[in-house]
Amino acid sequence: MNGERFSELQGGITAVRGVRAAGVHCGIKKAKPDLALIRTAEPSPVAGVFTTNRVKAAPVLWCQKRLQEGRRLSAIVVNSGNANACTGLQGLQDAEKMAQLTAAAVGCPVEETFVCSTGIIGRTLPIDRIAWGIREAAARLREDGGPEAARAIMTTDTVPKEAAVAVDVEGRRVHVGGMTKGAGMIAPRMATMLGFLATDAVLQAADLQALLVEAVDRSFHCITVDGDTSTNDTVLCFATGKAGGPPLHPGAPGWTTFREALVEVTRTLAKKIVADGEGATKLVTVQVAGAPSPEAARRIAFGVANSPLVKTTFFAQDCNWGRIMAAIGASGVDVDPEAIDIRIGEVPVVSGGVGLGSEAEEAAHKVMTLREFVVAIDLNLGEGAAVIWTTDLGYEYVRANVTYRS
Amino acid sequence: MNGERFSELQGGITAVRGVRAAGVHCGIKKAKPDLALIRTAEPSPVAGVFTTNRVKAAPVLWCQKRLQEGRRLSAIVVNSGNANACTGLQGLQDAEKMAQLTAAAVGCPVEETFVCSTGIIGRTLPIDRIAWGIREAAARLREDGGPEAARAIMTTDTVPKEAAVAVDVEGRRVHVGGMTKGAGMIAPRMATMLGFLATDAVLQAADLQALLVEAVDRSFHCITVDGDTSTNDTVLCFATGKAGGPPLHPGAPGWTTFREALVEVTRTLAKKIVADGEGATKLVTVQVAGAPSPEAARRIAFGVANSPLVKTTFFAQDCNWGRIMAAIGASGVDVDPEAIDIRIGEVPVVSGGVGLGSEAEEAAHKVMTLREFVVAIDLNLGEGAAVIWTTDLGYEYVRANVTYRS
Repeated sequence: MNGERFSELQGGITAVRGVRAAGVHCGIKKAKPDLALIRTAEPSPVAGVFTTNRVKAAPVLWCQKRLQEGRRLSAIVVNSGNANACTGLQGLQDAEKMAQLTAAAVGCPVEETFVCSTGIIGRTLPIDRIAWGIREAAARLREDGGPEAARAIMTTDTVPKEAAVAVDVEGRRVHVGGMTKGAGMIAPRMATMLGFLATDAVLQAADLQALLVEAVDRSFHCITVDGDTSTNDTVLCFATGKAGGPPLHPGAPGWTTFREALVEVTRTLAKKIVADGEGATKLVTVQVAGAPSPEAARRIAFGVANSPLVKTTFFAQDCNWGRIMAAIGASGVDVDPEAIDIRIGEVPVVSGGVGLGSEAEEAAHKVMTLREFVVAIDLNLGEGAAVIWTTDLGYEYVRANVTYRS
Repeated sequence: MNGERFSELQGGITAVRGVRAAGVHCGIKKAKPDLALIRTAEPSPVAGVFTTNRVKAAPVLWCQKRLQEGRRLSAIVVNSGNANACTGLQGLQDAEKMAQLTAAAVGCPVEETFVCSTGIIGRTLPIDRIAWGIREAAARLREDGGPEAARAIMTTDTVPKEAAVAVDVEGRRVHVGGMTKGAGMIAPRMATMLGFLATDAVLQAADLQALLVEAVDRSFHCITVDGDTSTNDTVLCFATGKAGGPPLHPGAPGWTTFREALVEVTRTLAKKIVADGEGATKLVTVQVAGAPSPEAARRIAFGVANSPLVKTTFFAQDCNWGRIMAAIGASGVDVDPEAIDIRIGEVPVVSGGVGLGSEAEEAAHKVMTLREFVVAIDLNLGEGAAVIWTTDLGYEYVRANVTYRS
């Protein structure tokens, strides 16, 4: 957490007043928690950001429909182990069934129940087990149940991922908390990323939506699990209003403070995803400066951050900057190769497009032995900048993906 | 080779009349051949296709200049082990020096000497060793030197890659031969692909250029080493004219026959690259049919063929078709998920966007245990089709890239 304005808190999504949660094992997965429930004290304004993949899982379609109808949120049910994607009509019926079972178990309207699934694509849900799990979870809902819920949404994640902060907004203590899951870092296009965020600030749905879009753009869209392309990616954010006071709105004195608190939580969660990327041994920050535009900077940063050849050099801790140069040149941005500078950490390795020699490479290698380091690229062309977080690509990535279904 | 019109030949590029070649070891690499020379009997019309990467190696700039000047080709010098890329002014001087040394050794104009380099980026060439190697190779030039030259241009390739055919064109026996190198299949954007093609047909440079562009589009651009994005990718094709007769031109009776012979040789070479992809254990043909357009089909085929998650399932021989569906959906093409059919070999595994069950998956798994198999995707939307060749992604890919510079 940077900045003194935010107090870091424990408890994840349940650090927010008006939120209870639970996680249980119902038997979708063999021996790990696989069903989470989140319940608001009252129907809450809700915002959502979803995958843009043309192949959308049934629960994504369910949630999008509820948002289009302008519904509030009273409960979220999430299962892991099965994505309920590419499951046809049965899948749509199962998603609705999950909403019905949840609504019945917690006592809220079906239309205020949001559904998420993550896991293997193409298998129908074991709905009987899920029905049992929903009842069990409903009975366990607690005001400190966030960590338990965060554990139940994991798939190939090795650690649960939560974040929460408190911040003073217009004289009121406001909380923002959340949890996320996601791995499969090397293949941004197919990892399911789920994120659930809550705040007790008072907000209208439209304003919350605007805030969420910006926060996701500055966090989950800056890692190589970028939300826009899996079948199931979903980020939901709801506002319980328990902090009281008038609604926060654009232009209000506390608007910026609150927005940065939300960004802080989403960024913390996003970086936790990268750090736990499948088989990852490195968390690498790719910074691009001096680009013709922010879009160009982002395109180059992603080009470098997604290149398997660059990623294997991160794993090897080898300052093979030529692969970085090649990835920059391949990005489609009209760069001037002879103006490019590259640093690894604080060590310059390329100046004016040319390498600075073996001593520089050796010093850079030392930086690359760290678990976290920065690759800083300056194109020296304009003012466009971007920051992206990525992982390395090593043997464990292959192992994780080869053994995923077995 | 398909079709009876083409007779497959040995000898690679030297199967073509008017071409001599040689390969030597000059010490850029430790113990393997690393310098090749190709020499034409007379200055020959030449065509070229180059990387569109903004970061271009010095030898690429040299070759492009010669083509822009409308030069003919008398010699090609190629070194492996060092890409002469990101080497600044020194690199440009070294590329020119290679041309000068070659011109002097074989007795031809510097401007008719083409230069290619492949290997590690960012290191200056050991020009003294190369000078020695050029003289040595010039003394070894032979009419059966193709295989030796093909071996000297290898980097991480495990086998040399050659192809040659004879075909009757307008009553004359015409030969087309060539060689190529390239691996690093998983990372199309940075593998260096070099291709050298020769024919003894009589052709003008402009017609040869048109033919080469089409042939590359139907071969090297259909594998995941697609020529448009490394720093060094180069395909050169020259016509010695030794078959005699009037120049072949568009509309001539033999034009199509000759074009298909050239495509045949380039496709054979392209598939050899895929089959020898770094760490590859599979050669997978991704066929897309029923797309709104050929471009859409190609985009989807590449999306599937480049997806690390799909590639790891090829390695695992696991019919995880959900990842294929997700890659299709992530391609940006406006598909109808519920119209998609997928076959593995002859086994239908997805119909109307929904999986056909575990028996189908088991049958598909059996197909995937083969070294070569087809993934056939039908979008059932239009007439657009594309075929792409790709590899799997396994442990050996990581090993090949981690140990590349050590």
